[in-house]
Amino acid sequence: MSIDRVCVVGGGVIGSLYAGHLARCAETWVLTRRAAHAEALASHGLRVTGKSDFTATLHATVDEAALPDADLVILATKATDVDEAAARLAGRLPSATVMTIQNGLGAEEIVRAHGERPLVSAVTFMSGVRHSDAHVEYELDTETWLGPYAETTTFERTQEIERLLVESGLRARAFPDLRPAQWSKLIFNATVNTVAALTDLPHVGAFAEVGAPTDLGLLVRDLMDEGKRVAAAAGVELHEDPWEMNVHAVRRGETEAAAGAYAHVPSMLDDVRSRRPTEVDFITGSLVREAERAGVPVPLHAAMYRLVRAREAAY
Amino acid sequence: MSIDRVCVVGGGVIGSLYAGHLARCAETWVLTRRAAHAEALASHGLRVTGKSDFTATLHATVDEAALPDADLVILATKATDVDEAAARLAGRLPSATVMTIQNGLGAEEIVRAHGERPLVSAVTFMSGVRHSDAHVEYELDTETWLGPYAETTTFERTQEIERLLVESGLRARAFPDLRPAQWSKLIFNATVNTVAALTDLPHVGAFAEVGAPTDLGLLVRDLMDEGKRVAAAAGVELHEDPWEMNVHAVRRGETEAAAGAYAHVPSMLDDVRSRRPTEVDFITGSLVREAERAGVPVPLHAAMYRLVRAREAAY
Repeated sequence: MSIDRVCVVGGGVIGSLYAGHLARCAETWVLTRRAAHAEALASHGLRVTGKSDFTATLHATVDEAALPDADLVILATKATDVDEAAARLAGRLPSATVMTIQNGLGAEEIVRAHGERPLVSAVTFMSGVRHSDAHVEYELDTETWLGPYAETTTFERTQEIERLLVESGLRARAFPDLRPAQWSKLIFNATVNTVAALTDLPHVGAFAEVGAPTDLGLLVRDLMDEGKRVAAAAGVELHEDPWEMNVHAVRRGETEAAAGAYAHVPSMLDDVRSRRPTEVDFITGSLVREAERAGVPVPLHAAMYRLVRAREAAY
Repeated sequence: MSIDRVCVVGGGVIGSLYAGHLARCAETWVLTRRAAHAEALASHGLRVTGKSDFTATLHATVDEAALPDADLVILATKATDVDEAAARLAGRLPSATVMTIQNGLGAEEIVRAHGERPLVSAVTFMSGVRHSDAHVEYELDTETWLGPYAETTTFERTQEIERLLVESGLRARAFPDLRPAQWSKLIFNATVNTVAALTDLPHVGAFAEVGAPTDLGLLVRDLMDEGKRVAAAAGVELHEDPWEMNVHAVRRGETEAAAGAYAHVPSMLDDVRSRRPTEVDFITGSLVREAERAGVPVPLHAAMYRLVRAREAAY
């Protein structure tokens, strides 16, 4: 079954990166929140710069009733907005497989509460900068990892989506079981995002420094070790070691910074700087809840969770 | 032996509160860092408003060589500046008992490294706002607690200083052994200051909330419990329970906020907001070092220490 029509819900950085690229090989619709945003995309197209460089022609609307049926829906909202997005799609686009790409765990179940669907779980490490409603810069061109969610769809369907993403110019990798990758990212994110949000530091070298007793890397490693104990107790064998992901990302960031690129600002730090609600309930929150279920103590993640919640209360 | 002449080193909030009050019952000198500051004090006097209301006449100089001998020196610098202040006084004011009032532990030993002196340890919870070089507002009129340091002076001498402070309009209480009070304040400070610095929250009600799993008070209590285990291992029986101090201060703050006063901004939060180096090495740092000496694990304080250091690095 080929994928001829795609609908991307949400025109933030990640939604724009998917929509812009996919529009090059499938009919692509973007469902936005603001009418001005949809109008800008429909009239100017979507300019993609950075790691890619082109202008995509696509359809955009603020009205979910105007969407045609589609083969694939990419739910590219923040974790905090999945419930609202799934409600908007309830009973619509009956042929679509829905792919969730949110940070944390549990987006699939929120979608399923609004009706049975073939569901594909995904995590992405792509990042970029949104310069305007119709211009996104593609910064980190890392892979999207995807896998069938529970028994709702097949690995073959997931591989079709993988091929489409690769054909569109993105990097992607399908897994028969996404949980090992999803958990690697969850532990990485719960650590790097909260540490960045509280220290006001982008993801820089300090996150991997472990030489002196006060070095930040020691806390980063302790947080990741707590997360790894939870994964082990939940029976998940991690796809990648989060500490190695951290060291690798920091080294890569240093190389790019030396080349004049910006240090990566994790989304939770970006939220705190802009005084927006963060995704901490979905990221650290889901790790802490899994830890409780598994009976594993996570005092450091619990501390970070309370600190970030208090940081939001201080806005 | 009466106290006729006092020298206050440092004209920040705390130094100004001591100098202004003491000038009403003893000849008082202030040693400042900036000449303009000394000139303002010498020509206009020091205006004290808030819980007190008067203008004090006092001497002020930026030149330690111009100071006459004194009976009492109050070292009212930040912990980070004690070494420099003690060096300025080395070999001068030979009759003076020196009282340290810094946050954390260890100021007395830094002073002693610059020459033998009778030393009085003190902690204070006073707070205020510095409106100008010659105007300080007295906000929290809480007690100064003081006690003889080691065998360098007597309890009687400490009581003379207590009487002088009370006579001047301040609140004070002398203890034969200050360590139980000093440690109570250390644990309180290491917790409240770092939590405030990282969350951007003044010391408000959230610090005592323990109803929901993500409530900040749970972290505050866990941090205080770690500190209490260190005190117990160091053989110190606390003067006051830090958690009760916290609850009491928060309730008092709420009453004053309702009356239109500001919520108390802990000094470390004030430092972070102004992008100044904090006293974390002297506060949390001394607690973590004592914990190591006593073999007590303090993972949460170690985490807070690393986070605040990283927060400073982000300036």
